[in-house]
Amino acid sequence: MTEPVPLAAPELADPVALARALLACRSDMAGDIPRDGGAQAALAGWLEALGFSVTLLPFGPAGAQTPNLFARRGSGAPHLCFAGHTDVVPPGDDAWTADPFGGVVEDGVLIGRGAVDMKGAIAAFVAAVARAGALPGTVSLLITGDEEGPAQDGTVRVVAWMRVHGIVPDGCIVGEPTNPSVLGEMIKNGRRGSLNATLVASGVQGHVAYPHLADNPVHRLLDCIAELRGRVLDEGSADFAPSSLQFTSIDVGNPAGNVIPGRARARFNIRFNDHHTGASLRDWIASVAQAHGCLAEIAISGEAFRTPAGPLVGLLADAVQAETGRRPRLDTGGGTSDARFIASLCPVAEFGLVGATMHKTDEQVSLDDLERLSAIYARLLHDFLTRPAEAAR
Amino acid sequence: MTEPVPLAAPELADPVALARALLACRSDMAGDIPRDGGAQAALAGWLEALGFSVTLLPFGPAGAQTPNLFARRGSGAPHLCFAGHTDVVPPGDDAWTADPFGGVVEDGVLIGRGAVDMKGAIAAFVAAVARAGALPGTVSLLITGDEEGPAQDGTVRVVAWMRVHGIVPDGCIVGEPTNPSVLGEMIKNGRRGSLNATLVASGVQGHVAYPHLADNPVHRLLDCIAELRGRVLDEGSADFAPSSLQFTSIDVGNPAGNVIPGRARARFNIRFNDHHTGASLRDWIASVAQAHGCLAEIAISGEAFRTPAGPLVGLLADAVQAETGRRPRLDTGGGTSDARFIASLCPVAEFGLVGATMHKTDEQVSLDDLERLSAIYARLLHDFLTRPAEAAR
Repeated sequence: MTEPVPLAAPELADPVALARALLACRSDMAGDIPRDGGAQAALAGWLEALGFSVTLLPFGPAGAQTPNLFARRGSGAPHLCFAGHTDVVPPGDDAWTADPFGGVVEDGVLIGRGAVDMKGAIAAFVAAVARAGALPGTVSLLITGDEEGPAQDGTVRVVAWMRVHGIVPDGCIVGEPTNPSVLGEMIKNGRRGSLNATLVASGVQGHVAYPHLADNPVHRLLDCIAELRGRVLDEGSADFAPSSLQFTSIDVGNPAGNVIPGRARARFNIRFNDHHTGASLRDWIASVAQAHGCLAEIAISGEAFRTPAGPLVGLLADAVQAETGRRPRLDTGGGTSDARFIASLCPVAEFGLVGATMHKTDEQVSLDDLERLSAIYARLLHDFLTRPAEAAR
Repeated sequence: MTEPVPLAAPELADPVALARALLACRSDMAGDIPRDGGAQAALAGWLEALGFSVTLLPFGPAGAQTPNLFARRGSGAPHLCFAGHTDVVPPGDDAWTADPFGGVVEDGVLIGRGAVDMKGAIAAFVAAVARAGALPGTVSLLITGDEEGPAQDGTVRVVAWMRVHGIVPDGCIVGEPTNPSVLGEMIKNGRRGSLNATLVASGVQGHVAYPHLADNPVHRLLDCIAELRGRVLDEGSADFAPSSLQFTSIDVGNPAGNVIPGRARARFNIRFNDHHTGASLRDWIASVAQAHGCLAEIAISGEAFRTPAGPLVGLLADAVQAETGRRPRLDTGGGTSDARFIASLCPVAEFGLVGATMHKTDEQVSLDDLERLSAIYARLLHDFLTRPAEAAR
């Protein structure tokens, strides 16, 4: 593990210095085990220097625990939480023009894995806190070390821990890179739900010339697939794009062209909007599968949610507009994020850097964007925590 | 390689002795290479002893040649040919109650791989020739060592060689095990055609949450499959069962549930009757595939054929009835056989042993059936070769 990078006090207000220090921690997955590279230890040190009390919350099996932390400063309402993750996806290939874990700055751009997804946003928030000085109410950070992986021992468990301890923020900002191409474009004020299913059809193997003596599971599976694909799930709603069902794999693995196989499998994913719940889709899939003699294994990885209009989204949009000159669009598209786990606890909105290079070679962020995001977060901290009490939540 | 088994002259009229000698030759596939185990050398020796001139016709790549032979006795019309294969499918498992290559007789039953498919029938025909004594016209045998495998360098090439040499029989009997459960039930007087196709859909890989940025090849493939399956090929005909299209495999191999894959493949087989030709189906498949942006690779492994009523089928049915008391049904169902290669050369009909144990553990034939099949072949030899000239072909 890399040693935590010590930073001098003035650097705690510098998002670039913080981001470079975090990027130098190798926190991609090592096989199935999240590794941290010292990222959370460094962050904990900085937050303690800024007056936070930090609780380390490792969850999961011994030897493969997911590092998580919850840090808190102040007490009482309003309470603004920032949620993020220190883990990153692996570099992927060797085509990088700079060391993906080097924290390299070139021509006003910081290159590295996690630059925008999302160590840069964590750095921007910490610097915003350092710049904001004393604030009323409560500021907290919910930081996980497994958002990109299985995410079973990360945010979902910290949120459960918060609930048990009666910690319910008035609003939570997630630092995911929400802007498609330029800072200020887009706030995510909700996400579609996501469901994964595997269909298995078992039949009776036989010679392809005697189909009446066999029971072709491929045909049963195809009939089941056709019925599932035949339903238009919805036409979208005011806040959501239409739900989408995508088959991602079908696998039989029968090398013999003259043999009807004994088994066939298919996998699909549904991204669903607020016309559905995971349970309503699960029931529908199970009944279609049963009608075709298929088994369905269904996992709901997140429900659709939308944060209603209120101070969190409104003040965030105002802060973005004040610092970038752009009024951000409210959007619920794209993939899932850890916001799905937080939505049941408190209002949640996502805003971070520009995602164009996330998960790609030469992931990068301009130093200007880091500075401006930090300014947006600082403005939101001030506006959200000092607003009149009657506007709370 | 096993040495050819020498047999005393009286044994050439004994189908059981001949069948046991052939079964003792290990002639299953060794990997992709047909092996013969001395079967054809033994057969050649017996046929030469019976007055045949034998031409060995190995075809295929050096080192992996398929053994074939053509044996001929007599000259002029009528000419009756017997077609068969000395190769067998592998034993498959260790559950046999006797050595599959031991030629073991127990309780009036001969057990071994190839007992019914179809060394037993070859033995029955050779013994029939030995018993028949002098005959007018021509008797020939077309024997291949690769019917169960790719069958590219077997009967199809011997037939081509016969055509080049002007050898056109007036009728050909194929010794496949045509009887489902009891000797005398069924003559195959035709076969459905067979076509294999592979569909490949290429798309654009992407995140499952952004299907509009990807092009899901699984969905393209499914649409293509649905159109192919949506057509009722036919309702059958007087001589044929309905054509049947069976998907045997679909393979994507995408392990990531959140990724739309870049490619998908499917394979299917069509068994088609005389409403279609391989070319008409190929054109249809190609046009459907093209309409859905899929590539189709199509291989026609045999055309549908039916041997018209005539002396071959009629005399064969009479001989079966005379020896078994059953009037055999004429049938065109089931898989393909090497008869498909012979059909373009001369009238062809298939009649052999009982197929119930073919390709299975403890493949077996009763000694009674071997004797009766030999008697049927002997009767056909006599009746076909001595019939009045005006009945020829």
